[in-house]
Amino acid sequence: MARTELEYPKQPYGTVNRYSPRASYALRTIHGIINSCPILHVSFNPPDSSFPTILPMIGQMGSFDRPSADEGQVLDLYLHGYVSSRIINTTRKTTGAADEPDGLPVCVAASHLDGLVLALTPNSHSYNYRSAVLFGHATLVEDTAEKLYAMELMTDAVVPGRWSNSRVPPNAAEMSSTGVLRVRITTGSAKIRAGPPSDDRHDLENPDVVGRVWTGVVPVHTTFGSPIPGPYNAVTDVPPYLQDTIDEWNQSGAESAMEAANPRKAAPKS
Amino acid sequence: MARTELEYPKQPYGTVNRYSPRASYALRTIHGIINSCPILHVSFNPPDSSFPTILPMIGQMGSFDRPSADEGQVLDLYLHGYVSSRIINTTRKTTGAADEPDGLPVCVAASHLDGLVLALTPNSHSYNYRSAVLFGHATLVEDTAEKLYAMELMTDAVVPGRWSNSRVPPNAAEMSSTGVLRVRITTGSAKIRAGPPSDDRHDLENPDVVGRVWTGVVPVHTTFGSPIPGPYNAVTDVPPYLQDTIDEWNQSGAESAMEAANPRKAAPKS
Repeated sequence: MARTELEYPKQPYGTVNRYSPRASYALRTIHGIINSCPILHVSFNPPDSSFPTILPMIGQMGSFDRPSADEGQVLDLYLHGYVSSRIINTTRKTTGAADEPDGLPVCVAASHLDGLVLALTPNSHSYNYRSAVLFGHATLVEDTAEKLYAMELMTDAVVPGRWSNSRVPPNAAEMSSTGVLRVRITTGSAKIRAGPPSDDRHDLENPDVVGRVWTGVVPVHTTFGSPIPGPYNAVTDVPPYLQDTIDEWNQSGAESAMEAANPRKAAPKS
Repeated sequence: MARTELEYPKQPYGTVNRYSPRASYALRTIHGIINSCPILHVSFNPPDSSFPTILPMIGQMGSFDRPSADEGQVLDLYLHGYVSSRIINTTRKTTGAADEPDGLPVCVAASHLDGLVLALTPNSHSYNYRSAVLFGHATLVEDTAEKLYAMELMTDAVVPGRWSNSRVPPNAAEMSSTGVLRVRITTGSAKIRAGPPSDDRHDLENPDVVGRVWTGVVPVHTTFGSPIPGPYNAVTDVPPYLQDTIDEWNQSGAESAMEAANPRKAAPKS
């Protein structure tokens, strides 16, 4: 990566302490993990509970002001929800404290599992994974043009090109029933593990242990199956924009899980 | 399900409002989703930040007092972490408020993606999924026997039988560097969507829209690849307990994604 790569500032609440060589603060790395994760986990503090609450949501990084911005640039996170859901109602009622940005403080996490790392002893077991967290403040998108931008962004994240290949634009009822949150990011971090298992010397030097415990990596990836037409589908063939995406995702998913398991990969002690 | 199935109590912060027919409060359903999820997302409020923080963690439901209890019974959630990680340090310093149970309030989420549900219009797009959240209070496990119980439980969740097929028991250094949290569950809920797309009448009655937009489900599941031996592996064949598990997971994963896409499945409006 060029040295011009942008990084998020390290904050006490957002800094990776454990296995810090696995950490990255590069916007490109973090945004890439978020954007390729089909389900994000979003936490917020509801007013009526002492529990921080997690919701599974769909979201995507983007920039309404500079739509051509790529994943290495400063972006907002757009999240999609039902207009009267708890998180959207809480956001609507939130006014920032005097010393804080406007909006509801949220944390957003994305995690990809790339492999089971099986070592000699349970303590050295690990996963190959790519995970990212973002911290920011959520506000409701009111502007119609920005809302449409975000809805297209999120639909095309499910399947690229799907927006223009479905019935658009949304009608008035659809627009008013859909809530879109924009999260202005304060900071974030990623944590990535790749490579084979790594064990302590006293186990590696014990021939009995090495001789009986299988060690290595089980690569893990997401598989997208053959599309199954629904009951009122009238389009005979699966459209190329859909089948090509499925084929590409399956191939790149399998390849990156294998690549992560590669013994030549640098592996900090797990 | 028999009517004796236990359910979690509905609380304002833990009740599913949107698409409530998709909700379940049955312990068996919720615990099954948690236990089959390789990465859990756990949120807590750190003392030095206004952001609820999410960590990806490994965890498993169990009962140290009644180890034979099944997933339909009252269980605790055990989570694994490094002994000086932020969540474990925060838990160590937490004393419950006067009117609350001891421990750190946490929310734990598990989500499985089973399919992309492609409808006529972006607003009717959805996922087939199984998600669960639990709310509870985390405390540090101090008792050595309980800690060992939890470590075996979590190792065998990664690969059944792995604990007894690796170098155990953990030595003193391993025991002291591993932190285990026990979460006493207050309540929880699950949300499940299955079935084909469902569109509004005005789109279904529009031959132009139905004639050009492919609708249906892309089934999604997790694939476990062929085990890749690590650099110091000395066991020639992949052991049957490992290969059999991989085969079983791949088969059941593909089958359940297909089953969820089945047009005969009851599908509440998406």
